Amino acid sequence: MTAEAQRYPGHGTSTVYDTAQYAPDNPYPTRVADRPALIERREPTVWGDTRRPGPHTAEQLALHDRDGFSTVQGLLTPDEVAELAGELDRMAADPTLAGDDRTIVEKRSRQVRSVFEVHRVSRLIAELAADERLVGRARQILGSEVYIHQSRINYKPGFAGGGFYWHSDFETWHAEDGMPAMRAVSVSVSLTDNFPYNGCLMIMPGSHRTFVSCVGETPEEHYRESLRQQEFGTPDTESLALLADRYGIAQFTGAAGSALFFDSNCMHGSSDNITPFPRSNIFIVYNSVHNALREPFAAPARRPEYVAAREVTPVGRVG
Amino acid sequence: MTAEAQRYPGHGTSTVYDTAQYAPDNPYPTRVADRPALIERREPTVWGDTRRPGPHTAEQLALHDRDGFSTVQGLLTPDEVAELAGELDRMAADPTLAGDDRTIVEKRSRQVRSVFEVHRVSRLIAELAADERLVGRARQILGSEVYIHQSRINYKPGFAGGGFYWHSDFETWHAEDGMPAMRAVSVSVSLTDNFPYNGCLMIMPGSHRTFVSCVGETPEEHYRESLRQQEFGTPDTESLALLADRYGIAQFTGAAGSALFFDSNCMHGSSDNITPFPRSNIFIVYNSVHNALREPFAAPARRPEYVAAREVTPVGRVG
Repeated sequence: MTAEAQRYPGHGTSTVYDTAQYAPDNPYPTRVADRPALIERREPTVWGDTRRPGPHTAEQLALHDRDGFSTVQGLLTPDEVAELAGELDRMAADPTLAGDDRTIVEKRSRQVRSVFEVHRVSRLIAELAADERLVGRARQILGSEVYIHQSRINYKPGFAGGGFYWHSDFETWHAEDGMPAMRAVSVSVSLTDNFPYNGCLMIMPGSHRTFVSCVGETPEEHYRESLRQQEFGTPDTESLALLADRYGIAQFTGAAGSALFFDSNCMHGSSDNITPFPRSNIFIVYNSVHNALREPFAAPARRPEYVAAREVTPVGRVG
Repeated sequence: MTAEAQRYPGHGTSTVYDTAQYAPDNPYPTRVADRPALIERREPTVWGDTRRPGPHTAEQLALHDRDGFSTVQGLLTPDEVAELAGELDRMAADPTLAGDDRTIVEKRSRQVRSVFEVHRVSRLIAELAADERLVGRARQILGSEVYIHQSRINYKPGFAGGGFYWHSDFETWHAEDGMPAMRAVSVSVSLTDNFPYNGCLMIMPGSHRTFVSCVGETPEEHYRESLRQQEFGTPDTESLALLADRYGIAQFTGAAGSALFFDSNCMHGSSDNITPFPRSNIFIVYNSVHNALREPFAAPARRPEYVAAREVTPVGRVG
């Protein structure tokens, strides 16, 4: 694909970097220039054999490769959903967690929005994170043993749940955490029903193949604010319009207990939720053991390990 | 339906007014008490014969009666859509309109959000408002000649289009404009495609049969703020949860040129729009000539006539 083909009709200011001249050791420069750029992905999405045996079918792996995500309806049983939902309720009400750095509250309502590193807080969630239904799929996709890069629970209450603006997780993990390559996969396990209208996750299918280099430098301690509301590392509107025009938008809907596996570089976001139907999910990021973090590529300092683990311990049954 | 049947499991503080003891001449008290209440609708939704001839089919009228709304795909031709979209673009860019009281801008971005009384600003929109495809349906639904109570254009830009929180238009028109009965119908004509994810209109089907009495008094000049962001006359979360539980939520999607006719008392709202796909529509409210405005039922003063017309002139071909 040429730079020309990526221009958006009527705008045409997005260009593809000649990455060699910027940073020979960094194929994905971001937050270093004053103009956005689109960079084609170098590495595969499904690593190794797409017929590798495991819980994901060959068809699911092929869809994951093509779209950057794959879904599993009913990954959890209703009993498991109920048990984990109870755990989340307890955690949201836990006064010791409320004052913890790992807990992020809504900007306006001060309600709990996210809690990080939950696999170290909750035995139940640790068990889920090590469950073959999750880890087995992560191994199939990443073609290696995997470790937990990040875990969190997300709450989006009814009536006033705030959305997440469009972003690529990899852009942040690369810039702020020093993740070298796109060899991580996230899984979002729904504990509530996802409708098209209650702020469900939106993905641009296929967008994982394009890295959107963002403008502006990362301020110090940016993460404290960005986990509530991102201001740096957000893609420009022109690149988003181009990606949406090229790929369209998919919504992740389905009953509680379903799971979405998505590539670290998917362009995704969510709208707010004014409906009475709350949303909550458990979010676990598996990274390949061959993709351990280095120093941040575009930030003055590392983020805390509860956001970006630096201990590479394979999780689950080592195959 | 009894008060008991309307209690929401686990809450149970909503009750049905004995309206007679509050205001014998006002069946829909609102903004007068410190607790919300649910009041059953008294008047019909489709007035008169549901087989009355006109552009709406008998089936569409029956659906409108049951759900409180009805849709018409392709009401406008693509050429008409393009012509009207051009008109909206011109109006959004018109410096004389920008400084006009009738123009409402987004709270954050200052972009034009709505322009009121557009049938008096634009000849094209005046013609649309008098078109039999619209007026004929309004007459069928309201069973009488109709006049234009309000007209406006709404813009919801991509990336940052703000939503509208849940509300019943009738609640506001009754409280702040003195509309006596639920004998008005709105039509929203889409000039852009509506997807489930770009902030389309959500309605709770059947909610038009229940009036949600809101708490709190109306402050002076409330309309200046409320047209951007409503703060009074918003239903309480418990009543909304009850209605959503009972009726569910429908989304109005479809190609540009489609139209939604909905009852004045439908509970409706919309999410924000973070997608690159903007939304715009023309919104016209027809009121029955037998339902002319009185003094506000729950506000210190009338709102301006560009928001709530007091001149009752039948529109379109008088039948």
